[in-house]
Amino acid sequence: MRSRFYLTVLVSLIGISLAFPNTAHGQDRPLLGFRALNVSSQRALEAKFDSFLKADNLRTWMKRLSAKPHHVGSEAGRENAEFMAAQFRNWGYETKIEKFYVLFPTPQIRLLEMTGPKKFRATLREPALKEDTTSAVVGQLPIYNAYSVDGDVTAPLVYVNYGIPSDYETLEAKGINVKGKIVIARYGGAWRGIKPKVAAEHGAIGCIIYSDPRNDGFYQGDVYPKGAYRNPLGAQRGSVADMPLFPGDPLTPDVGATKDARRIPFKDAPTLTKIPVLPISYADAQPLLESLGGSVAPDDWRGALPITYHIGPGATTVHLKLKFNWDTVECRNVIARIPGAERPDEWIIRGNHHDGWVFGADDPLSGAVALMEEARGVGELVKGGWRPKRTLVYCLWDGEEPGLLGSTEWVETHAEELRNVAAVYINSDSNGRGYLGMGGSHTLEKFANEVARDVIDPEKKISVSDRSRAALRVSGGGEEKERAKSGADLSIEALGSGSDFTPFLQHLGIATLNLGYGGEDSGGSYHSAYDSFDNYVRFSDTNFAYGIALAQTAGRMMLRLGNADTLPLEFSSLTNTLDRYSRELKRTMDTMREETDEKNRLIADGIIGYTLDPKKPDRAPKPKTAVPFLNFAPLENALLKAKESARAYDEARVKLSTAVTPEQAKLLDTLLIQTERTMVRPEGLPRRPWFKHQFYAPGFYTGYGVKTLPGIREALDQRDWKEFDAQMPILAQTIEALAAQIDRATALLKGSDANP
Amino acid sequence: MRSRFYLTVLVSLIGISLAFPNTAHGQDRPLLGFRALNVSSQRALEAKFDSFLKADNLRTWMKRLSAKPHHVGSEAGRENAEFMAAQFRNWGYETKIEKFYVLFPTPQIRLLEMTGPKKFRATLREPALKEDTTSAVVGQLPIYNAYSVDGDVTAPLVYVNYGIPSDYETLEAKGINVKGKIVIARYGGAWRGIKPKVAAEHGAIGCIIYSDPRNDGFYQGDVYPKGAYRNPLGAQRGSVADMPLFPGDPLTPDVGATKDARRIPFKDAPTLTKIPVLPISYADAQPLLESLGGSVAPDDWRGALPITYHIGPGATTVHLKLKFNWDTVECRNVIARIPGAERPDEWIIRGNHHDGWVFGADDPLSGAVALMEEARGVGELVKGGWRPKRTLVYCLWDGEEPGLLGSTEWVETHAEELRNVAAVYINSDSNGRGYLGMGGSHTLEKFANEVARDVIDPEKKISVSDRSRAALRVSGGGEEKERAKSGADLSIEALGSGSDFTPFLQHLGIATLNLGYGGEDSGGSYHSAYDSFDNYVRFSDTNFAYGIALAQTAGRMMLRLGNADTLPLEFSSLTNTLDRYSRELKRTMDTMREETDEKNRLIADGIIGYTLDPKKPDRAPKPKTAVPFLNFAPLENALLKAKESARAYDEARVKLSTAVTPEQAKLLDTLLIQTERTMVRPEGLPRRPWFKHQFYAPGFYTGYGVKTLPGIREALDQRDWKEFDAQMPILAQTIEALAAQIDRATALLKGSDANP
Repeated sequence: MRSRFYLTVLVSLIGISLAFPNTAHGQDRPLLGFRALNVSSQRALEAKFDSFLKADNLRTWMKRLSAKPHHVGSEAGRENAEFMAAQFRNWGYETKIEKFYVLFPTPQIRLLEMTGPKKFRATLREPALKEDTTSAVVGQLPIYNAYSVDGDVTAPLVYVNYGIPSDYETLEAKGINVKGKIVIARYGGAWRGIKPKVAAEHGAIGCIIYSDPRNDGFYQGDVYPKGAYRNPLGAQRGSVADMPLFPGDPLTPDVGATKDARRIPFKDAPTLTKIPVLPISYADAQPLLESLGGSVAPDDWRGALPITYHIGPGATTVHLKLKFNWDTVECRNVIARIPGAERPDEWIIRGNHHDGWVFGADDPLSGAVALMEEARGVGELVKGGWRPKRTLVYCLWDGEEPGLLGSTEWVETHAEELRNVAAVYINSDSNGRGYLGMGGSHTLEKFANEVARDVIDPEKKISVSDRSRAALRVSGGGEEKERAKSGADLSIEALGSGSDFTPFLQHLGIATLNLGYGGEDSGGSYHSAYDSFDNYVRFSDTNFAYGIALAQTAGRMMLRLGNADTLPLEFSSLTNTLDRYSRELKRTMDTMREETDEKNRLIADGIIGYTLDPKKPDRAPKPKTAVPFLNFAPLENALLKAKESARAYDEARVKLSTAVTPEQAKLLDTLLIQTERTMVRPEGLPRRPWFKHQFYAPGFYTGYGVKTLPGIREALDQRDWKEFDAQMPILAQTIEALAAQIDRATALLKGSDANP
Repeated sequence: MRSRFYLTVLVSLIGISLAFPNTAHGQDRPLLGFRALNVSSQRALEAKFDSFLKADNLRTWMKRLSAKPHHVGSEAGRENAEFMAAQFRNWGYETKIEKFYVLFPTPQIRLLEMTGPKKFRATLREPALKEDTTSAVVGQLPIYNAYSVDGDVTAPLVYVNYGIPSDYETLEAKGINVKGKIVIARYGGAWRGIKPKVAAEHGAIGCIIYSDPRNDGFYQGDVYPKGAYRNPLGAQRGSVADMPLFPGDPLTPDVGATKDARRIPFKDAPTLTKIPVLPISYADAQPLLESLGGSVAPDDWRGALPITYHIGPGATTVHLKLKFNWDTVECRNVIARIPGAERPDEWIIRGNHHDGWVFGADDPLSGAVALMEEARGVGELVKGGWRPKRTLVYCLWDGEEPGLLGSTEWVETHAEELRNVAAVYINSDSNGRGYLGMGGSHTLEKFANEVARDVIDPEKKISVSDRSRAALRVSGGGEEKERAKSGADLSIEALGSGSDFTPFLQHLGIATLNLGYGGEDSGGSYHSAYDSFDNYVRFSDTNFAYGIALAQTAGRMMLRLGNADTLPLEFSSLTNTLDRYSRELKRTMDTMREETDEKNRLIADGIIGYTLDPKKPDRAPKPKTAVPFLNFAPLENALLKAKESARAYDEARVKLSTAVTPEQAKLLDTLLIQTERTMVRPEGLPRRPWFKHQFYAPGFYTGYGVKTLPGIREALDQRDWKEFDAQMPILAQTIEALAAQIDRATALLKGSDANP
């Protein structure tokens, strides 16, 4: 369900940083985790793997799997799971379909009407198009937001821009209160689930979310079916569960939603919204927005509808009525494995979801069919006699769209085992044409970069890594440009949420990567009935060349992780990145302090008052509490130690090429697997114990958007100095525990007692 | 005809700089140019002047003067001039109407139609509105651009964004050529006359200019008559003569367009456009733009129409036919004076135009009626027995809209006399609600700031100067904020063109100020039939409080300039400003060099190629010639000298308070009047000898937008290194001549031989 991948790519390109200079080229380059004598055979294996991959398979599978609506609990979803499982069995995998029983609401009543000053009833329907074969197929989930509560409300309407906390500050400055009102927010600015959450916190009683054509429609390009962009009646489905609290089945936090799992009462389910929420198209939104009076919206609140955007409230009242079937449905994960020949109790896990909101050709099938072809290629290698050292597990998750249901319930069910055996999780989701985006654990940054240097871009015939560097040299900032020019590693982005990596990384602390291509294929089919095969092969990765590139990228990772003499984790990239986060955060604190002081002074001196237009409702804001100097020393000292530990490990691991015995290597793996585990804390983050990773979390008020060092960062965001002071030692201890674990690995390599 | 004043204000606020700290307050503050013993009587005079001013007069006059269309050559224009002249006579002024005979085209045929793929004919008409009394009055000039040539062309259409040179670079990168095409450009980005000029340079055969609602319409606010913004059928008239070459009558450059003036043949008139041009409304533009195919326009080219903006060309063809009555009409300036009692041969000139495109309530009457009330107040003082030392000349110009006709012909006619006697020119044009905007000669910066500290803002009851400082403290950049906080002088903006100051400042080198209030009154009546009394009193300076503030501001200036013991010019503000320009320009050169090198390297290495989407037409640009290190030393050395001269004058002028005899003061005035004259060169700027000022000029490719140090700056802009090297010594000599003139003034003050 991750929003169009190009967004991810941009973040990745912006976040790039120098880690390791590129010191060798092509076939001669060493491979992290491999002894020198094993490198050439590994490269030969990868070349053989590449030779198996066929774009036609991706096309055939996508067409088949996207022929009917295949959301969680649907008949087509069941058929798809069974088809995929059958394929995996054919390819030689131990395969099963693992079922969970999850709460999944579907609409019974959806009514949105303007009751005054004019009458208007929203259509809430995406019409069939002759240019899009599947758009007429029955069984489509209608336009709705999953996990909205039932409701029947009538109230004046207020436009709240993106509906994120800063927008409510703007409303406050204009003297506008949403208490007792229904708000209309545009998609964008944060994950959709944040909008009803923040609206409810401000007293709103209903929430409408629409796709503004400025962000997602004709402003961006020709609309479907003429072009790829969202047409006037297209709308974005999606979950609005409070996933920053926990993802997965709302009734079974922390435990797998097996048939007999203990469930919390429906009325106590904390991730359901507090107010009813409905997504609508821009054709449906226009009459409502056009009718609003009150203040003209600020410049950055205005979209592309041909109206003057007003905020309201005023005479415009709307009636929103929603009622859902609160059913429990079967959620079917396809789990396929090739047991490891030497270290079967070390798992390399690869996943992509298979459920779609409707036909889901792009989301998720573009990624799923690449994963299937990758798995088929690996199967061919196995049929040819090869076996990985470690166990490879391929997963196709169900129920990702409503809330990462399949992956979360599987991870929660197998948590104890996974904590011991799971080495790395590699995720993908939608895939398109363009640049490689990579996010995840920074212990895998160097490894991911090695792979990206070895995959060739289908359009430009240079490595996908060099293509990203070219983009940075053309469009990046000064420092980025220089790094890209030097050929340095690309920074991988930190992960928030929005796809199945979340339970692996943030709940259990399993080293994770998330991959996908995009940036040249933007469009507007996201979570609509027009996310179809017809649409994908006209406007996205039309010849599936980037589907093959994804199979090559993730496949290489699986083969290397499966085969490496020791796990290719590395820690300087991580500690350098943490150091950067720490410095950024300190700057943020200083900037907040200066801006708060400055603003408070302007308020106190009446200066802001002098600039207010007396004919407008704007008023001077209230002063904020001053920002104290907060103690960063524990973090800085812990990082000093961890950087030294990372450096020592870098020095020690050169021994790998000669002096490590298989037993030592196995022992080292065991230590390395646990390094990411040191980054999670059993008590989790404040107010959301399910999220346990201390370096990466989805933002409590951004949703998918990541907050790095979330304990202290969100305390700072919320101006909660006490919580900052409470979180700081926890973070410092986490980093110290990481350093100690790295030291154990170094000690092992140095031959002293590792005390694992 | 200056575009909405708020633009000017913003520029002024951005361009602010520190000149002199504020050292004394209120009534105790010294007044530049006044001996200490004369300060209190001057302030008493100003208080008396204020007491005469009545907002009701402004309202009455605006209603009367805007009742009928009063463009140059119209019957109502004649009546208005006679009415105003009669008022001035009543107020005790020596008054005459001075006539010129100018080329002024009005439309005979205006036809714009889409000929394919669909048929559409533009309405080209602003309908009468019941909410706007005058909109139904007959005799309105239709929607057209004055000084477009006649033409009858049919060709494919291309959208060129603002139609400025950088837009054609974008087109080039997309492989789009406008040769033989008709271009459609939106208003904005540069003065309108630049659009057909640049289009013709690129081979286009016709030009349409439309008001996009993003810049000027519903995107900004509710449209007229519900709100103040341009409605779908509203359009912007305006001149498209090549005024950066020279303003005024196209047939009489350099000489006054008197009845018997020598005129150049019509076919040789260089300021007429090369291709036919027509402005249209956004209702008329939408069908054309909607029909365009080809590339989707880049993000910053997209407006607010509910379409996907494409560039074309393609199947869309348009037919544009224009034919004009090329009449010669009477242009009537009202010139009124109060002779100076002591130094009648030193003139302080005050002007505002009186002609409008249609009813012209805002533009120009909002400024003109403030000038009238100011003049009436001065007249009352004279009736009470006061007489200025110097001659005060009040001017109401005709024909400003088509091309500064009245002011330019008057200045050209009286050039010899003005060179001797004109001390200062103070201009205004449209006036509105909000902040004081000030532009002009930096020799008047300190003087203008003194006045701005003494005028009280009607809304906030603080000085208009402090209100501008408040805005800078809230919205300005770091350095600006600190300056504003310190109470330092506000920077006045450098003047380009767009109102009647141009012939005074840039042709003759007369120290000039341009004034007006605005920023809280933005709307969309500019150059439309809806620029009416009804509109103005609903949406702009509704109670004429800022009209009175303008009368107080300009009136104070006239009274101080008329009465001062010596002219209140000062040179450190100027030399500091020139120093800033010089440093900016050097940085610009360095940045150009670095960017050119970087870009050329990316092109040569193929890096840009790697980032181009193969499914889009974009291609790598051609490399540009490297930017050499250019010699700034002559300018820097001349400024070193001039700054020292300015400092020495600052020191010497403290003597004014005690030791200067009336004869010395008169002699000093004579020297000071000539300081601005040293800034003009008889040969003028390259390719446009009419523009003689070496510090300020309208940009050859920006129009109204100023280019400071234009000789070297435009050479740099055009990457003409040879011309830069040729212009540099001219600029340096100009500054040296200025320094020498300042030194003469200093020497006079020091009692040595001034050799004037």
